[in-house]
This record gives sequence, C-alpha cells and structure tokens, in this order.
Amino acid sequence: MKQKLSIVKIGGNVIENEIELDQFLLNFSKLAAPKILVHGGGKLATKLATKLGIKSKMTSGRRITDGKSLEVITMVYGGLTNKNIVAKLQALGTNAIGLSGADGNTIQAHKRPVKKIDFGFVGDIDGINSELISTLLQSNLTPVFCAISHDGKGQLLNTNADTIASELAIGMSHKYETTLYYCFEKKGVLSNVEDDGSVIKHIDTHSYNDLLEQNIIADGMLPKMENCFHALQQSVSKVCIGDISMLQSNATIFTTIRL
Amino acid sequence: MKQKLSIVKIGGNVIENEIELDQFLLNFSKLAAPKILVHGGGKLATKLATKLGIKSKMTSGRRITDGKSLEVITMVYGGLTNKNIVAKLQALGTNAIGLSGADGNTIQAHKRPVKKIDFGFVGDIDGINSELISTLLQSNLTPVFCAISHDGKGQLLNTNADTIASELAIGMSHKYETTLYYCFEKKGVLSNVEDDGSVIKHIDTHSYNDLLEQNIIADGMLPKMENCFHALQQSVSKVCIGDISMLQSNATIFTTIRL
Repeated sequence: MKQKLSIVKIGGNVIENEIELDQFLLNFSKLAAPKILVHGGGKLATKLATKLGIKSKMTSGRRITDGKSLEVITMVYGGLTNKNIVAKLQALGTNAIGLSGADGNTIQAHKRPVKKIDFGFVGDIDGINSELISTLLQSNLTPVFCAISHDGKGQLLNTNADTIASELAIGMSHKYETTLYYCFEKKGVLSNVEDDGSVIKHIDTHSYNDLLEQNIIADGMLPKMENCFHALQQSVSKVCIGDISMLQSNATIFTTIRL
Repeated sequence: MKQKLSIVKIGGNVIENEIELDQFLLNFSKLAAPKILVHGGGKLATKLATKLGIKSKMTSGRRITDGKSLEVITMVYGGLTNKNIVAKLQALGTNAIGLSGADGNTIQAHKRPVKKIDFGFVGDIDGINSELISTLLQSNLTPVFCAISHDGKGQLLNTNADTIASELAIGMSHKYETTLYYCFEKKGVLSNVEDDGSVIKHIDTHSYNDLLEQNIIADGMLPKMENCFHALQQSVSKVCIGDISMLQSNATIFTTIRL
C-alpha cells in the first residue's frame, strides 16, 4: 500500500492576514507527515511594486510579468513570505524547507509561448522532480513551495500556485496516495454563492455534471474545478476545498471531490 | 579517508557585478562536488531600503538590523539573490538548492544579546545541522546559503556570511576533509596593501605571528584572519583567500592558510 501524502495550497487571503496565517500554520503543523505546502501570492507583491513605482502591466485584462515584476515576485514570495513561513513552521516543530522550482530542479517549466498575448516571464510546467522531492520527504522534511518555477536555462518564471499544487500532486501520485487540499476564503464549494452555509460536502464526476447543468458552479470556481478533475484523472486520490479550518482533525464542513 | 568538501564564500563585490558573478558561477560549477556556496550581501539591500525610504540605523558606527531592514534583507538575499544564483547554477548543470538557516533548521542561532549596543535582529550561530546538510550533499545537491539564520522560535536573523561559511566548514569537518574558500576583491592576502602583485601564497601559525609583528596584516584583514585560524583550529583542513579566479583548476596566485 502506498504511503499517504498531503499537499496543501494556501492563497493570498491567508498569507496577507497574520492571525489567519498563524492559525493555518498551527493546523498544518499538526497534519500527519509527509506533507507539502504551496503558497500563492496575493497583494503583497503588488503593494511592494507600487511603493517602488513599478506599474502592473495589463494586456487584454491579463497581468503581464515583465522583468521588474518578476524581481518583485522573487523578493516577496521567494524571500519574505517563503522564509517567514519556514521559520514559523520550524517554531511549530515542522522541519520545513523553502523551495522555488529552481531549487533542486524541483519544478521544470518553459516560458509560456507568445500567442495572442505575451505574458512575459510566466512558466507552464513541464514536470516535477519527484525523485528529489521523495528524498526530502523521506528525510522528514516538509517542502514549502513558492509559486516560482524555472526553465533550466537560468530563468525564473512566475507560475500559478494552484497549478504548482496540482502538478506536484499528480507527479507524486505514482509513489504516494496523494490528497490535494485547496484552502481559500470560503468553507467549500457552495450550492448558493451567497450562502456560506450551503457547502456541498461531496462532488464526483456524476454530481459535477449535474451542478454544471444547473449552472451552480459559478464562473470563478470553474477553472478551479477543472484543475481538480484534471488532477483526479491523473491518479490523485482526492481533492478537498475549504477554508483553513479544513485541516483540523475534527473538521466536517468542506468539499471533498473524487472521480 | 574522509571525502573532500569545498565551502566557498562570495561577497557583495561579486554579487553586484553580473559579469563577475557569471564568471564566478562558471568556475564554481566546475569545482568538484560535494560543495557548498555561501553568499554575502553587499549594497543591493541598502539600495532597495533607500528606494523604500527605510533609513539604515547606526549606533556607535555599527549598523542595526531593525524589523524593516530584516524584511529587506530577507527579500533581497533570501529571495532575489539566492534564487537567481540557484537558477544560474542549474543552467550550468549544478543541482543547487537555496537555503536560509531556517530551511531544514540548517543554521541555528540566537539573537545577539544586548550589551553596549542592541544590534537588532542579528544572529550569533549556535550550531549547524550537519546531518541534514550531509543528506543533501549525498543526494548530489549543492546547498547555496544566504546570510540568514533563525532562532527556532520563528524569528529570522541577519547573520555575517563569513561566519556562516566558517561555522559550516567547522560543523562539516567531522565528516569531511573541508576546504574553506573566501572569494573577495583582492587576489589574496597582500604583503603590501597598495601592491596587488604582493600576494602571500602560504601562511601558517608561525608566519602569521611574524606578519602580525611586522604590522603587515592590515586592520580590515585582521578579523578575517582570526576567523580563518579559528576554523583551522576547529579541524578545517585549509583556508584559501583570493578573487574569483582562485577556483580555476590552473590557479596559482591566491593565499593558502594552514595551521
């Protein structure tokens, strides 16, 4: 039987609120190892860029990562956020190790090809170094990934944190029985977007199609759900969506997605 | 017989000059593994702090690391500098992994006690996690350390890069035959500080005492030399001081220090 592995992704809403972050890290530290944390960005980099007079470039409503923006992202997510999370986890007894995709060549990517839009230094993932990540996990380390990959030619690349989490989960699934947790601001997938109490506890392929037909899955949730089913189809055991309380051992209100 | 290990420290003068840094990294990538790189700071953090309107605090001519300065240091050295060096080494075929002392609890320190001066968030090293660093080296990884340690209670600490390099060399010496390389702007220890051609090729305890008596070791060099002899007395095999060309296989002009 394969060993269980938990991969948890937190977004900007958790990182930006220190009380929320500390509560999350306490919950995460109690989660059984082996485990991996992936943290997204949020507004911290935008705030620093604004202070430095670096303007966000947008094309057709999409954010572009130019060289200066990439520097800010590398400083904030690769440095400040990542190292502080690692230090806090160490204090909680979790032997965390902070990584970008360049570290140990853990996440290999290529710069997104220019089609209609040139997104700049944005990475599309080619693969993960599951061998090395396994070695780290077997050494009782807990990898903490920021949302940065690299192209193997010396270029760091800004990469979507949800995608990093799902690619890690997929890549580790041949060795581990992998559960992917997406922590966000809601308690789960809601049947009524205006009612936080309307969490759908279980979704599978069949009920997902029903939800789609009834237009219950709202716009913002669609790519997240597609990402989840993509991971499940690639051997990830289950995906859980909820807020930071989802990691507590007595948690019951969150969404579990299986094929 | 113990396996050989090279620990190389580069300072701000190398990091700030991209051509120099690329040349150094090429030399470093050719150096036989296992090896460890430690990079210092330089003026990049000061430049960012100035842009952000954060003033350097000085007391009795000594720089103080307050909370805001520590954030800048963590962003620049832990993020921007460290991740770019790692990405560049990956492109050169060296499987680098960037670390602060919090990552894997590799460098344990405590906040420097307040005596005459409160240095702020500055760390004095208690020990290194030689077990884990060995595991990384045996996994064919090349650790790249920035000059940040932690106190195990969630606090990152600004820490002198020369000291990190020598403490790593000392801590690894029970497992490895360790050589410590200090790369700086000069070709070595000079017998005439105004003549770059006056490199002293070999120094030992005996000749060092002679150099001290003749006042040939200049003020700025004294703490560096004390650091070197401290490392040698703690089982480090030898210490080499020179510029970036020192790492080339055919290099002859640099200073080698032994007991």
